[in-house]
Amino acid sequence: MQADRTAKGLAVPRIVDQDQRRAAIAEALWRVAAGEGLEAVSLARVAREAGVSKGRVQHYFASRDELLADAGRRLVARVRGRVADRLAAAGPTLAPAEHVRVLLRGVLPLDETSRVDARVRSAFLVRALGDPALVREYQEGNRLLVTAVTGCLQIHGVTEPDASQEARLLVALVEGLETAVLLEEETPASATALVDHQIARAFGHTGQ
Amino acid sequence: MQADRTAKGLAVPRIVDQDQRRAAIAEALWRVAAGEGLEAVSLARVAREAGVSKGRVQHYFASRDELLADAGRRLVARVRGRVADRLAAAGPTLAPAEHVRVLLRGVLPLDETSRVDARVRSAFLVRALGDPALVREYQEGNRLLVTAVTGCLQIHGVTEPDASQEARLLVALVEGLETAVLLEEETPASATALVDHQIARAFGHTGQ
Repeated sequence: MQADRTAKGLAVPRIVDQDQRRAAIAEALWRVAAGEGLEAVSLARVAREAGVSKGRVQHYFASRDELLADAGRRLVARVRGRVADRLAAAGPTLAPAEHVRVLLRGVLPLDETSRVDARVRSAFLVRALGDPALVREYQEGNRLLVTAVTGCLQIHGVTEPDASQEARLLVALVEGLETAVLLEEETPASATALVDHQIARAFGHTGQ
Repeated sequence: MQADRTAKGLAVPRIVDQDQRRAAIAEALWRVAAGEGLEAVSLARVAREAGVSKGRVQHYFASRDELLADAGRRLVARVRGRVADRLAAAGPTLAPAEHVRVLLRGVLPLDETSRVDARVRSAFLVRALGDPALVREYQEGNRLLVTAVTGCLQIHGVTEPDASQEARLLVALVEGLETAVLLEEETPASATALVDHQIARAFGHTGQ
């Protein structure tokens, strides 16, 4: 409260600061959800995890539902951001098949951060199915991925409808491997090898 | 309580009856979880959904955790049972590729029952990750599926390590398409077509 009053009139820094605080609360929610699912999420528990008072959380979020909606949106944006970062880091001169590898590895739970994301995405899924706005966020994330992979296949010379079909297949495979890695049915290395095998096939290095 | 006292001494029918009642409570939990996730599951809510008193639920399950563990185990068994039923209905003379189609369609959410199962499996996943016994149930279900698909590929003449690799790829694809169908990114028909395409490829009708 004190901070808000002090910041009165300094609109831009205050907005940035508020968004950072909301983001920190969302990240605390992710940690709780990644460990125990959404069933463990309450305003009090998230406040404790974030190291702030419950009143501070309530200052930013009127209800548990509002907090969950915000954390869900931020999660989808974070996964999308990670894929974009990886592409930027890889540079603009990638061969199409390599471009697809970078895109799809951005989604697999290969390190601790993406592992937490995968657990939280999974924790949110059933809730998302009852929330049309969040379903659209999930769909939009996957649609962007399918479109990007389709484009790479087309640049490589794969025509429609094969390019779209192979892209949907690859994205679904990665989604399934996400679960397989969480359940330790696949290791990050074995999951990556399966994706590479299917990419090579889609790009015609082996098989069709 | 009355029923239990009346049944005293009639051990076998009483056990059957008790298991049916526990199963009915587990099914009520699935309906709640499929609609709103595990966060909506409480002893009172499940009792209401099952049309029994909270005391009746507590008679069978000492805690919410115990109820969830039982419902989780029954769910994995139900999905496994559906796959076995489909295979039995299809008969023993299936060609290997057709055998694989039947197996994998048993997992996809193609009708209302399997759609509910898929939602509940998803709702349980993060909780399962913290419960070694339930992780083993999930793993065992998928391992049986991978082993069966590998066997069909080997009968068809695909050698190792290709047969196992194609089997793991197919099972992961189906797992990912389960989510895609729930999110309405794929229809049951388009998801089935993608699986059929990949089966044909693994069996060498197209591609390698």
